[in-house]
Parts: sequence; C-alpha cells; structure tokens
Amino acid sequence: MRIIYIMPGTVSKGGHGAAELERRRGILQGWASPGTEVAVVDLDSGPVSIESMAEEYLAVPGVLRRVQEAEREGFSAAIVGCYGDPGVDACREIATIPILGPGECSMLTAASLCHRFSIVTVLESIVRPLERLAHHVGVGSKLASVLDAGVPVLELARDPDLSYRKVLEAGRKALSRDGADTLVLGCMSMAFLGVSDRLEAELGVPVVNAAMVSLKFAEMLVQAGLTHSKVAYPAPPKPLPL
Amino acid sequence: MRIIYIMPGTVSKGGHGAAELERRRGILQGWASPGTEVAVVDLDSGPVSIESMAEEYLAVPGVLRRVQEAEREGFSAAIVGCYGDPGVDACREIATIPILGPGECSMLTAASLCHRFSIVTVLESIVRPLERLAHHVGVGSKLASVLDAGVPVLELARDPDLSYRKVLEAGRKALSRDGADTLVLGCMSMAFLGVSDRLEAELGVPVVNAAMVSLKFAEMLVQAGLTHSKVAYPAPPKPLPL
Amino acid sequence: MRIIYIMPGTVSKGGHGAAELERRRGILQGWASPGTEVAVVDLDSGPVSIESMAEEYLAVPGVLRRVQEAEREGFSAAIVGCYGDPGVDACREIATIPILGPGECSMLTAASLCHRFSIVTVLESIVRPLERLAHHVGVGSKLASVLDAGVPVLELARDPDLSYRKVLEAGRKALSRDGADTLVLGCMSMAFLGVSDRLEAELGVPVVNAAMVSLKFAEMLVQAGLTHSKVAYPAPPKPLPL
Amino acid sequence: MRIIYIMPGTVSKGGHGAAELERRRGILQGWASPGTEVAVVDLDSGPVSIESMAEEYLAVPGVLRRVQEAEREGFSAAIVGCYGDPGVDACREIATIPILGPGECSMLTAASLCHRFSIVTVLESIVRPLERLAHHVGVGSKLASVLDAGVPVLELARDPDLSYRKVLEAGRKALSRDGADTLVLGCMSMAFLGVSDRLEAELGVPVVNAAMVSLKFAEMLVQAGLTHSKVAYPAPPKPLPL
Amino acid sequence: MRIIYIMPGTVSKGGHGAAELERRRGILQGWASPGTEVAVVDLDSGPVSIESMAEEYLAVPGVLRRVQEAEREGFSAAIVGCYGDPGVDACREIATIPILGPGECSMLTAASLCHRFSIVTVLESIVRPLERLAHHVGVGSKLASVLDAGVPVLELARDPDLSYRKVLEAGRKALSRDGADTLVLGCMSMAFLGVSDRLEAELGVPVVNAAMVSLKFAEMLVQAGLTHSKVAYPAPPKPLPL
Amino acid sequence: MRIIYIMPGTVSKGGHGAAELERRRGILQGWASPGTEVAVVDLDSGPVSIESMAEEYLAVPGVLRRVQEAEREGFSAAIVGCYGDPGVDACREIATIPILGPGECSMLTAASLCHRFSIVTVLESIVRPLERLAHHVGVGSKLASVLDAGVPVLELARDPDLSYRKVLEAGRKALSRDGADTLVLGCMSMAFLGVSDRLEAELGVPVVNAAMVSLKFAEMLVQAGLTHSKVAYPAPPKPLPL
Repeated sequence: MRIIYIMPGTVSKGGHGAAELERRRGILQGWASPGTEVAVVDLDSGPVSIESMAEEYLAVPGVLRRVQEAEREGFSAAIVGCYGDPGVDACREIATIPILGPGECSMLTAASLCHRFSIVTVLESIVRPLERLAHHVGVGSKLASVLDAGVPVLELARDPDLSYRKVLEAGRKALSRDGADTLVLGCMSMAFLGVSDRLEAELGVPVVNAAMVSLKFAEMLVQAGLTHSKVAYPAPPKPLPL
Repeated sequence: MRIIYIMPGTVSKGGHGAAELERRRGILQGWASPGTEVAVVDLDSGPVSIESMAEEYLAVPGVLRRVQEAEREGFSAAIVGCYGDPGVDACREIATIPILGPGECSMLTAASLCHRFSIVTVLESIVRPLERLAHHVGVGSKLASVLDAGVPVLELARDPDLSYRKVLEAGRKALSRDGADTLVLGCMSMAFLGVSDRLEAELGVPVVNAAMVSLKFAEMLVQAGLTHSKVAYPAPPKPLPL
Repeated sequence: MRIIYIMPGTVSKGGHGAAELERRRGILQGWASPGTEVAVVDLDSGPVSIESMAEEYLAVPGVLRRVQEAEREGFSAAIVGCYGDPGVDACREIATIPILGPGECSMLTAASLCHRFSIVTVLESIVRPLERLAHHVGVGSKLASVLDAGVPVLELARDPDLSYRKVLEAGRKALSRDGADTLVLGCMSMAFLGVSDRLEAELGVPVVNAAMVSLKFAEMLVQAGLTHSKVAYPAPPKPLPL
Repeated sequence: MRIIYIMPGTVSKGGHGAAELERRRGILQGWASPGTEVAVVDLDSGPVSIESMAEEYLAVPGVLRRVQEAEREGFSAAIVGCYGDPGVDACREIATIPILGPGECSMLTAASLCHRFSIVTVLESIVRPLERLAHHVGVGSKLASVLDAGVPVLELARDPDLSYRKVLEAGRKALSRDGADTLVLGCMSMAFLGVSDRLEAELGVPVVNAAMVSLKFAEMLVQAGLTHSKVAYPAPPKPLPL
Repeated sequence: MRIIYIMPGTVSKGGHGAAELERRRGILQGWASPGTEVAVVDLDSGPVSIESMAEEYLAVPGVLRRVQEAEREGFSAAIVGCYGDPGVDACREIATIPILGPGECSMLTAASLCHRFSIVTVLESIVRPLERLAHHVGVGSKLASVLDAGVPVLELARDPDLSYRKVLEAGRKALSRDGADTLVLGCMSMAFLGVSDRLEAELGVPVVNAAMVSLKFAEMLVQAGLTHSKVAYPAPPKPLPL
Repeated sequence: MRIIYIMPGTVSKGGHGAAELERRRGILQGWASPGTEVAVVDLDSGPVSIESMAEEYLAVPGVLRRVQEAEREGFSAAIVGCYGDPGVDACREIATIPILGPGECSMLTAASLCHRFSIVTVLESIVRPLERLAHHVGVGSKLASVLDAGVPVLELARDPDLSYRKVLEAGRKALSRDGADTLVLGCMSMAFLGVSDRLEAELGVPVVNAAMVSLKFAEMLVQAGLTHSKVAYPAPPKPLPL
C-alpha cells in the first residue's frame, strides 16, 4: 500500500528546508510495515508552520487540493501532517480513501492505554484549539489537560536538548498537577524529534508519538478495508472551486 | 457605529446576483438601531454558497483578509454571514473588533428563550457540522435536534412558498418528534427570506432569525464596549501569509 | 420601548436608601439606546439584599406580582435585578413580555467572548447556587469557576476602593488558577459600582457587566420581536393566589 | 423519632379537605418503622396544589416558616411534601435537621434499582421543571424521560380508576418508547393514590412511591446521624424577614 | 427481616481472623432497626482483601454462589461487603432480592447531603476504579475527587490512631483543594473502624459510613417492597456454571 | 510478533467444538501482517458463551491466569476474545504486554470513521452492559445506540443466513431510527461469521469487525512499542490467589 503524508505548509521553502521532507519520509518509512510505501509532500502555498487557528485555515485549501490529487494518484490513505487535524473533516467529504488526522489517531490510541491523558504542545496559542479537538474527537472525558512547552515549532530543532527539557517539564506537570497517566506529543515537529522513548523512560508513562500512530492507524484501516462513513462525511452537493 | 456583514462567497458573481448584496443590506439596515450603519460585502473568490465543510474552509482565507481590512477601515464589528460560523475563531485571533457568527449569536439567543431548541437548515450535508457547532458554542445541552428542509441554498428563493412549506414541515417535526420549543433558522439565505414571523405565528413558538440577532448582538457588544477575549483568541505568534 | 428593572427586595427601605433606585435608573438610562425608557422599582416586602437561596425565594412572590403589573402597565420587557435570576422561570410562565435574568444574560454574553469564564460574586454563601445557575442556563461547559470577593452586598459601596481590590484579587485567581479568560461580575450591586472598565484594563480580559448586558439583551429581544417560548414556560393551569 | 411532612399549600382549605391531612398521616404512619411518629401539616397561605413553577415559588415562604418552627418543636427531620422539592435548598440553609425532598429521594432510590428511569407526573406544565430537577439532583444521566398523565392534581382522586389507567398508559410509553426500566410516580397526590403495587404488577418494573421513600430516607438519615452539609448549604449571612 | 452481609474474601482465614466476622455482625446489628436480623459471612476462596480490580474479579464467582444461596435461605436482601461493589450487577441478574453495593448506597446518600462529595479510600491502586464507579452509579457530576490515605486494608486496624490521622489529612485535602463539602469513607474496613463521628466533628462536614448506610438502604428497600428492575438486570439466558 | 487470542470460555468443550478454535485462528492469521503469528486458546473452566454480566465475571479468573501465562510464554500482546472486554482492566494490572479488548478497539476505530456509531449485538441481556462499556471506553458521546439481533451466541452459526438477515435488520434500524452512520458488530461469534463486507455493501456504511480490528490494534501497539500505562493500571499491591 502507498500512504501519503501531506505537510500542510510550505515546508520545503521554509526554515526546515527541502531536506526535512526527505528526513521525515525516512523516519516514517522506517516505521512502516513491509509492503507499505510512504510519500511525504508539502504545499505550494500556505503557512510555514501552524501555531494558530488562522494558520490552520490558511493551509486547508492546499490540503484539499493535494488530497484530491492523492486519491487520483492511487494512494491508499492520506495523513494530514499537522496535529490540529486541519480540514480533515472536509477532506473526508471529497475523498473515499481514509484520511487520517494525527490529533485524532493519537488521542484514540492514548484512550486505549490510559485513564486520563495530557497533550504537550508547542505554544499557548494552540492550547485551546487542542482542547476543543479532544471533544470533537469524542474522548474529551479522558483528557486531563493540554499544556505547552513554550517553544515555537521552528525552534524545536535548533536546540533539541533544550526542547526536550521543556517538553519533559511540561510532562511532569501533567502527571503531578493534572493527574494524567499517559502523554501525547501534540505537534508533528515534536513527533519527529526522536524524544518519545527518552521521555517514556524518564517519566514512566506511555508517550504517544502522533506521527507514528497516524501511520499505523492508516495501515490498520487500509488492511481492514475500512474508510470513513460517507453518511457522516457526505460529498459536497455541488462542484468545489478547488 | 458601522457594522460590516461579510458574505463568505462570490455571491455577486453567482446565482444571487449583485443586487442581492444590496437587498440584504437594506433588510439589515432596516433592523439596525438609529446610529448604526450597515455595509454588506462579499469575496473575490470562494464558493458561491456553503453547503459542506469543504466550502466553509474554502471561504475562510477570503474572510480573514476581509476582516483584517474591515478593522483597518474602522468598522466597529464584523459579522461572518454564514450560519456555520466559518473561521470565526481565526478572525478573532487577528482582530480586536467583535467578530460575530450567526450560528453562535442565534443559538445563544435561543438558549435564553427555550428549554430545548432545534435548528432547521437547508441540506442534510450540513446537519452534522451544525450539531458540532452547537457543542462548540457551549449550549449543546439545550439542543433538541438539527433538521434539514431538503432545499439547496440557491433554490430557496426560486419558489419561496415551497421553501416556506418545507421549512414549516421540518419545524413541525422538531416540535412534535424532538421536543423542541424554540426554532432557529440555520441558513442565512433562509434568514433573509422573510418567513420568521409567518413561521412563528403558525407554529406558536419563537423563531430566531440568525441574521437579525447577529446584527443586534453586534450592536449590543459595541454599545457595551465588549469584544472577545484575547486570552481565548491570542494573536498568531508570527505574520500570516494573507 | 419601556423597560422595567425590578429590584427584588425592599431596597428603598434598606441601607441603600431610595436615592439608590434613582441612581441605578440614571446609570441604566445612560446605557440605553435612543428610544428606550428605563424604570427602576423595588418591592414592598422581601429581603433587603440577596445573599442566600432563602432570600431569593422570599423575594419571588413580590417579583411575580410586580411582573404581572408591569405587563399590564405596558412595559416591553422586565429585568429581574438580582444576579441569581430568582423566579425568572416562574415570571415567564405568567408573562408574555420578555423576562430577563442578569445571570443568564451575562453568562450567554460571556460565552460569546470566551473559551472559559469565571464569575466573581460577593459571598461564599452564593457560590454554589451560581454554579448551578450556569448549568441551568446551559453554558456550564464553559464555566471555569465561581469565586467570591468576601464582601457582603450592603458593604460593597462603603469602601469602593477596598471592594475593587478584593474583586480584582478574585479575578486574578480566576485567570491564573482556574484558567478563565473572561470575567463576569456576579452581583448587581457590583455591576453598579462602576468598576468594570478599570478591571478590564488591569486584567486584560473582558469583564461583563450583568446590569448593562441585561438591558442590552432586553433591547435586542424587543427589537427582534422575540420573547420566551410559551411551550417552554406554559401558563399555570389555574389562577394563582398572587 | 418524630418526622414532619409539610404539605406546601392550603390543602385543608382546598378541594382535598382537612380530612386529607389525616388520611395521609395515617398512610405515612403505616409505612413508618416502630418508634417513628409522623405529623402532617399544611400552610396558612399559598396555592391549593402545585402544577407550575409559579405555584412552587408561592409555597416556599410558608414552607421556610414551617421548617423553622419544626426544628424548634424538636422534629428529627422534615419532608417538603411536593414532588418538585420546592425550596428544599433554602430550607437546608436555615435548618440543621435533615430536609427531605420527595423528588430527590425517589430519584436517588430509583437510581439504585435501574439502568434508566422515567417519571410519570400530572400535567405537561411540570414536565420541564422535573427534567431540570433530575439534573440538579445529580442523576440526570440515568433519566430516560418525564411524561405526564394529563390529569390535574385535584382531579386525580375524583376518578381513581381513570387516573390509574392514564398513569399506566404513560408508564407503558416510558418503557417501550423511552427505554425506561424503572418508574417513579412524580406527584405526591399520585403517591397517596395506592396504585404503586398495581402498576408494578401490571408493568413488571419497579414503581417508586415518592411519599414512602421520602419517609424511609428520612428515617435512614436520622438513624445514621446524618444531615446535609452546612458547607453545601451555609446559613444565610443575615437574619431573614420570615 | 434477615439481611446478609457477604464479605467477598477469605476474611476468617486471613489477617482479620474469624472474630472479625462476629465483630462486624455486632456493629451492624447495633445499627439495625428493631426486627432486622443481620448475618455476616465470608467466602471459602478468593482474596484476603480487595485493593485492585484483579482482586475484585477474583472475589465475584464466590459472591455469586453466596448470593444464590442467600436467596434460597430466605434472606430479604444481601449486601456485597466491599466498597468497589464487585459483581453487584451480576448478582442482580441472578437474584430477585435487593442486592446492595456499599459504594452505590453511600454515594447516593452523599448526593442527598452535598453539593460535591469526595471519597477517601485506602490505596492509590483503587482510586481510578472508584472514580469509574461514581460515574457508573450515576452521580459522577457531584464527585469532587477520590483520594487515598496511603494505608493498606490489612494495616488499617494495626494502628487505628495513625490510620485516623491519615484519613483526616486526606479529608482535609478533599475540602480545601477539591471543594468537597461531604466525605464518604471508601473502604469497608475503614467503615468498621469507628472513626466517622470523630472525623465529622473535626472536619465539620457529613461523613458517610458506607457500612451503615448499606444496611439502612437495604432496610429501606425491603420495607418499601422494592427490588432492582429485572428489565435492567435480566436473568442470564442460560444456566450458569456456578 | 506472537499474539494470543484468549477465548474466555470453555469453547472447545462446548457447542462450537475444538475445531472452532482452529477455524478462528485461521481467520485471524489470514488478517495478520507478515511476521505476526496468532495463537487461539480457550479456558479450562468457565461459561460456554457470554450473554450476561454473570457469565463475564465467571470467565475472568481463567482469563487472568491465561494472561499471566501468556506473558511468561513470551507473547507480545493478548486479546481477550469477548466483546464485553471482561476483566481487561484487571489483566492490565497484572501484565506489562498490551491487553486488547475487542469492545474498546472496535469503538475507538469506529470513532475515527463516524459521527455516531451503533453496536449490533446478540441478545437484549447484553445491551445495557455494552452501553456502559462505551462510556467506560470514553466515546459515549459518539454512541447512537446498542441493538440486539435477537439471536443467542450459540445459534448464530446454525442458520448463518437467518443470522445475517437479523443483523441486517438491526443495522437498518440503527441507521434510520437512531441516526447512526457507522456500525460495529458487538459479538465475537458475529465477527467470525464473515458477514461484515456483505453488510457494508448492503447498508452503505462502514461495518467494523471487532475481531479484525483487535488484531490490527494489537499489531499497531506492539510495532509502536506502546503498552497501557502502569499509572492507570497499577500492579496489585499484594500477591493474587490465582
């Protein structure tokens, strides 16, 4: 099966550089089951990173076009590579292949491991939207809290050790103050930092990597022959100006 | 005070024609308090009408640009003229003037009149998104149901009498089957059809016109010197590619 | 339009003095739109101020009589001037004009501005009833907390600066400890202290004045031709011993 | 122990006649444990029966006075004899003996027997208030529905057989349409009709008699040395104009 | 009436000794109404005490056998003497006499006294299961928190004064940090320690003893002729391998 | 990886026959990814099939013993092969390998595809327990309904065509009456009937096969190096009498 991971922004033009797409593809491919081929693409226009609702919305038109194309190109499933799941509902309206949102996949996986989970994300500006996403996904009753590490997306990789320590500190607070027993890394750049295992070892609770479980969820749905309900996500009643 | 009503689509290019903008402006101006001046604008690009989540998202970038402009032009408040409140959260991030969503305004108003309210909208494709909106707005515990009249937006005005009868029938079902005691017209084109009073008389329950109460809510906030919380809707941490 | 603001107690006989009615009328009239005339009345019997459920109930029979009279006198709407909204549901049973509760109006308005709001009230004895009111109004999912400033109603005006500082302190706690991003002043005497703007400036979040928004909500409903549903609030099936 | 059952209305002056108080006392005394003595009283003023929120409120001041007196007279507990539990929260503020509400007692008892329960009451005018009461009591998640039998309080006893058949019909609807598996008789006059056993036999589900379980709940609390929390129901901070 | 209290473990073989059964019977009999006879039994096999879900499940088969026997022996009601209510739902499937769970009885009783209650239990390992039980019982909306005193069941009685101080400390935290106004002792060995009154006096809030209220609840149901709904708890469709 | 599927009953002694274990193993192995080896085992004692809470509990001690053994034998994950997830929480207390419940896995998967899902199960006796399970799993807000097909577990395979038609009929009701847009087969014997694809084609909505997605969920967790939180499911504080 071929799975496309769509980065909803102009990553190859931005601070990350084009090499970042290839780096992420390599990591995802390393996680893939035998027989799965992963492609990673970004968009021609849109924000360089997503740290607000406004940036989420600005990315969605490009994501919709890319999803439409991906289905034509024969991909088996598409992952919208931003933790806020921007436009995933709309993508499901226009597609019949499974559309995966890392926020949704990671929260559902966390729900199967925990009594209460917390999400650690980058900046305070995205905390409230992620609280809403948890309720939208349907597992709000298991959410302990959403916390930010206070590091912008584009700075996460500059000083990985500092980033790690800030994420660790937020994780500690989630466990001791908010009663969480499982953590989710709520940012895709964080998910590709390679810190999940170290965090898990140091904190003694599961740390769900949203990038990895999105890929695994995609494989699971494709192997099970499942895709989202067209009654839940009906096709738009008239052609779209895409 | 000057209030701008932004139609999130290319209405003047579409089936409604440019006269429709002026017609709606006239109706809104008629509802306005002395001293309020209403402007109605649409977008250069985007969908002609909104009947799916995909169309909502396609409208948002244009709405964001128009809201930014409106604040610079000195408007006191902006109404995003689509019942689904597309991008209202993002508009609040980039603006300091009150941004009104007709869905939110009408549901909060209905909540003050009812024990349980139902929303009558155009097509089935928008029923589930409106159910979600009610929970997002915070009054989900008072929602009896969302029903569709089975009439596309652009056909509402073709046979107003037929449209009226279909809305009436959906309203009856909301009262008898779902236990609603108050109705909301969940589509802006429906709100400008002039049927609220007739429905109210025939059904014996309040019928909230989302266009009218959005305007009144905007006047209320401006007069009270209130606008949305910037802690709830923080400014995006970096410039947007608008 | 003529709007009556009914103070549910023997205010003119009490500590506030009769001049207090006129003072409040002046403030409300100052907030009113052109064409709105405000009357302020109190009751012949009942508590001097309301700081418990018992006092709320003791005020209701007088409020019911005054509301009945107000409708006969041709008022367009009536505001029950106590933050706990005592007897508002019963008033709606016996009236057809809109009956406004400051608690309800201010919480619905706050809901439109916030992600989570807190209410600052006078004494601990009224904290739990206001938590219940928020759920009753239907916006309990957006309530961060109810806090008291530790100042009895009748002492609020004795040392306004001390009162201000205590309200400010409670507001700070709401933001930092409870995660609120919007505040509501949960006492009508507090609402007439003239501190909302100062609080808003100092705390950096919207502060909703329940007196002002009740008046504006009343104007909105009257202008929109809306009143509460008689299916939700049916007339009592037999004459009342009023 | 001595338990007082306060009928919140002018029953002895009304359709029921003074003999009705004695009749009810006899029934309650028959249900009482050895050592329990039951008194039944009504009020000097107030409604003759309660079928609306307005009537509930009109009864409360008299109930408060009677509760205060009852505590002075040495009663061990007081039952407010109306299914809507009018003023029970306020009574708890002014008393230290247990104050029982038949609505609360019967819903908590039903919760221990059922997966989902329905309440059958007299008239449609009281359906919505009882829905709210269930949430207030805290067991809203187990409420299947509230239905009315369409018989006013004062007519229940005129044609007991007709009343029984109407209650039975409403009960059947609760089971088949609303998925209830347990019923509660939601009106005190219904509770004293002597139909619980017959209903239970005919419907095959538990039928909770609110009068009986209020008495039993009162005995339980007194025997256990328990009364309501004064932190939850603090004494009013100043003397009441009772 | 004869009520059986089934200790779901091999208590008479364990640390408590056989005398413990007689001690508990004496205490329960002391709480019983005239005419109630209490029997206390334990199981032939199972855990010695219950401090985990695994131990709950290991106790259930024995409980089911003992309940079946109890009904044959003519007992009027059975109490499953573990705070986690292990297997109470299954016992109700196979029995027609009332089956009481101390967790359920105490939480419903607490709900009638409080605005928000907290449960103080023995060890952290049982905190999450009790949170779930509160939602299962239906009063989750009134639960402030579940806290542990950090004392294993079998050590509670070793140093009763130390146990008391630890329970007191947890109770204080529940009131000040979690906003509880009523406490429940969430462990049966704690309930038989004789500390409820002392705690109540020292903390100033009701302390519900789950052992006592289970007995009282049982008496109430038997006297009222009530038992659980067989529609809610239908008999297993085929014979059980008990 | 090696995954063990534990049938919680004496299947090989019962109506299904020993061949049934091998048949199910074959089907599961057919669904497995390359590199996954599936074992299917049953228990020495316990019920032959599970259609009540009592039977669930009777199966758990054997399941706990088998899980403990499975971890020692080096299995990577264990699936408790009954839709009600009997004892899954307790298994997680005693194990460190992932323990999968088909109910949980299938509901979380359905949540990712739907707006609202319904579960079709075998008999009415298991409907209420499955409603509770959905809330326990955390996705209760997305549950439309649980319906039974009216066929006992052991009769499902006798007349597969009749079983199919009854499941189909229940599924139709879920869509039209309850507003579901996605179905889950809520019984493992149903999951092994081979009817999911046919149902999906006929009903036009996703049909989640709990057996298949449990296996896929197990593979996902093992590949992601995830297991349940030991803070959420702490080890029992003392040795178990297993």
